[in-house]
Amino acid sequence: MQALIERIMRDGKNLGNGILKVDNFINHQVDPELMYACGAEFARRFARIGATRILTAEISGIAPALMTGMHMNLPVVYARKSKPVTMPDTVYLTVAPSHTKGRMVELIVSPEYLGNGERVLIIDDFLASGATIQGLVRLAQAAGSELVGIGTLIEKSFEGGRAVLAHLNVPIESLACIDSMENGEIHFC
Amino acid sequence: MQALIERIMRDGKNLGNGILKVDNFINHQVDPELMYACGAEFARRFARIGATRILTAEISGIAPALMTGMHMNLPVVYARKSKPVTMPDTVYLTVAPSHTKGRMVELIVSPEYLGNGERVLIIDDFLASGATIQGLVRLAQAAGSELVGIGTLIEKSFEGGRAVLAHLNVPIESLACIDSMENGEIHFC
Repeated sequence: MQALIERIMRDGKNLGNGILKVDNFINHQVDPELMYACGAEFARRFARIGATRILTAEISGIAPALMTGMHMNLPVVYARKSKPVTMPDTVYLTVAPSHTKGRMVELIVSPEYLGNGERVLIIDDFLASGATIQGLVRLAQAAGSELVGIGTLIEKSFEGGRAVLAHLNVPIESLACIDSMENGEIHFC
Repeated sequence: MQALIERIMRDGKNLGNGILKVDNFINHQVDPELMYACGAEFARRFARIGATRILTAEISGIAPALMTGMHMNLPVVYARKSKPVTMPDTVYLTVAPSHTKGRMVELIVSPEYLGNGERVLIIDDFLASGATIQGLVRLAQAAGSELVGIGTLIEKSFEGGRAVLAHLNVPIESLACIDSMENGEIHFC
């Protein structure tokens, strides 16, 4: 998606060690218009998968998931990383390694909002190693939901996440794909 | 705002001790259409304050802030509760008590995205004791920004937050106001 690629070229920063800083428009400051356009593009690409619910992980998945949900007229569920007092005692919980935090984090979903027979579209900001998305897939499976698609704003193809997720046999869409961050550069697929 | 009040009446749950559960449409599952409408209403109410940036706190403030930013054509900054590796070494940080977590949490903003001369509109999900919003106000002040308005989806007027914020002398708007949660009821102002 050209608008996102151009924004990464303009405002993205290669911090080394494969870390792409996009705090200017996704991860700390958010550009609502760009997210709106990304949501429209996901809605177009996933128009035919029959999704009934969108699943994402707090925090940075919320903006693209919300905009996709708006365009597809679907509710959005974001997995929590800690269990608030408003959640029931029994929940779906899995752990996944966090890239930016350097430790394992919990992903928690209430059975109230993810259940048997739902057709789940996962939306997140990054597809890197695929570990967070695998965690979301486990939550959907635990709930008896069917995974029908995976969409991410930015794929770092050199981290191999797409191959890790291939066995799920659902469409995987990324709006910008980066295949190398060697030598301080950001090279698009 | 009638649509939000009706949704609280239908899907909100009074868990006792002043805790209102709105996980069905704001805090865990999000209704994008409702958030879109709330964003439009904030944009209408704050049309004349000359805001240049919207400030919120992760996690649950992101959805209403993003939709308000879309309608007002403004960037949204969400204060982080932990410092990711992409943030610079020197940041604005304050602490505020978290209602739902029962402990102090940090609120962190990078000087990259909040600076001198900005006119800041704070948007959040709840106005209860006002403690989180006071934290956001301190961050804006530390950055040299001017506070120009405060908007929240739901005000629990019996917790007194509005009085705590009155000295700031900016418009405070809530889209639904609850003045009592005694005896398991939810009573609107």
